[in-house]
Amino acid sequence: MTRPLAIVCGSGTLPLEAAREAASRGRDPFLVGLVGSAGREIEAYPHLWVRLGEIGKLLGAVRARGVQEMAFLGAVTRPELGDLLPDWGAVVRAGEIAKLFRGGDDALLRGVAQLFEGEGFRIVGPRDFAPGLLAPRGEIVGPAPDEAALADISFGARLLTAMSPFDIGQGSVIADTRALAVEAAEGTDAMLARVVELRASGRVRLKGKAGVFVKAAKRGQDVRLDLPAVGPATIEAAKRAQLAGLAIAAGEVLIADRAAFTKAAEKAGLFVYGWSA
Amino acid sequence: MTRPLAIVCGSGTLPLEAAREAASRGRDPFLVGLVGSAGREIEAYPHLWVRLGEIGKLLGAVRARGVQEMAFLGAVTRPELGDLLPDWGAVVRAGEIAKLFRGGDDALLRGVAQLFEGEGFRIVGPRDFAPGLLAPRGEIVGPAPDEAALADISFGARLLTAMSPFDIGQGSVIADTRALAVEAAEGTDAMLARVVELRASGRVRLKGKAGVFVKAAKRGQDVRLDLPAVGPATIEAAKRAQLAGLAIAAGEVLIADRAAFTKAAEKAGLFVYGWSA
Repeated sequence: MTRPLAIVCGSGTLPLEAAREAASRGRDPFLVGLVGSAGREIEAYPHLWVRLGEIGKLLGAVRARGVQEMAFLGAVTRPELGDLLPDWGAVVRAGEIAKLFRGGDDALLRGVAQLFEGEGFRIVGPRDFAPGLLAPRGEIVGPAPDEAALADISFGARLLTAMSPFDIGQGSVIADTRALAVEAAEGTDAMLARVVELRASGRVRLKGKAGVFVKAAKRGQDVRLDLPAVGPATIEAAKRAQLAGLAIAAGEVLIADRAAFTKAAEKAGLFVYGWSA
Repeated sequence: MTRPLAIVCGSGTLPLEAAREAASRGRDPFLVGLVGSAGREIEAYPHLWVRLGEIGKLLGAVRARGVQEMAFLGAVTRPELGDLLPDWGAVVRAGEIAKLFRGGDDALLRGVAQLFEGEGFRIVGPRDFAPGLLAPRGEIVGPAPDEAALADISFGARLLTAMSPFDIGQGSVIADTRALAVEAAEGTDAMLARVVELRASGRVRLKGKAGVFVKAAKRGQDVRLDLPAVGPATIEAAKRAQLAGLAIAAGEVLIADRAAFTKAAEKAGLFVYGWSA
């Protein structure tokens, strides 16, 4: 008998990839697509569409299927209270929901997890049911980082660790052991685009391929929820920024669309390295 | 007898303001304008123009005037070795100069200071000869920050402290105790412009005036050199980002063009507060 697993799906390819890996490990995925975020391809599996706030509908459907475990994958734009289309299930939990909207993204996600845990579900993450999506340790795509790149990786890893109590610190670009850019609310793509500008304007001067994009989950982060992810688009952005490579925290960063990601990195001559503290 | 003081001048109004305050305190300023950075107005005082790298010329002129103390004020774009127009004085110090070009801005500035200390000069900073340019403690421009703003200021101050060992961490924008933006190589103006975009795109949603720009010197920074500065343009940038106010570290941040700065903040309804850890 296969155990059912509900995956609440945001945007990107990861929800479906996670469903595939879970299925290949004998799980029975039930995909809950968030309207406006998840893609149609989730309909390849048993599924349900819900809008943000339709908590009663979601709970009813997953309980009817005997689901005891839930996971969350893919990106969702941080909602405002006004975005929610609350159903009765949300209304009766209004106090808890309002609390979610204070503080950083971590607080929001921890709150969402607690809300579902309060309803009796076990929250699981990709580590539990789709570990193949996580960055392994060491060289992921060659060439191996050279000594200068390893120094940048170490610098970036320490910087991200120092920032992690502040609910930021998932990404930084380091070159010559100097932080060129630090990611906050703008996200990885905008940060990497900033490095393109910094180099084009001459504000940062580097010759040829230089610098490393260092990425990690925040130290205190609930690894079941909202793990950072890289994918083919990250490689394109890193290539535009003329970086030497990507260093992603092993076991903490999801790689979306691995085959296309690897091919793009090889083509761009970028290394991808899985670092661990 | 007045003691001479050489002020090496980059761009902006601060070099001349510092010269004025130094003169009013009985010092005899000699302004060394960096070609391409300093403005013509330095010629109101005894002065010398030098290009980056003309170290022999600079040393000869200041020694001829009996200068024993040197200060550095105003912004200079981080140079490349190739930008230097070395004179004989630079050539004989080539080894030291090459070392300056590794590592972060702090390392560069410490290196410059050490180079001149090695030549027998005492390096002084605005605290020593123009303390009136530094942010005082408490309310600088009203209204007083409210409780939410004080929480943001405290959060930002702790974040900057955590980042300071990494030779970044001079600026951040905090709203609802969440870091919207962290400044690295792009500088304050670009960071504040990013907040304008984050709000316009809906990636960050805040109602009305919200958020505080928190600024400090880095903990390990040599306060004689490269203190962070705010001025009227900072107020304009903060206004465009619809912030509630600015919180600058008391005694650590220079305020350029104080009268225009105060007037602009009052007109924009922005508070300016001098925080201390």
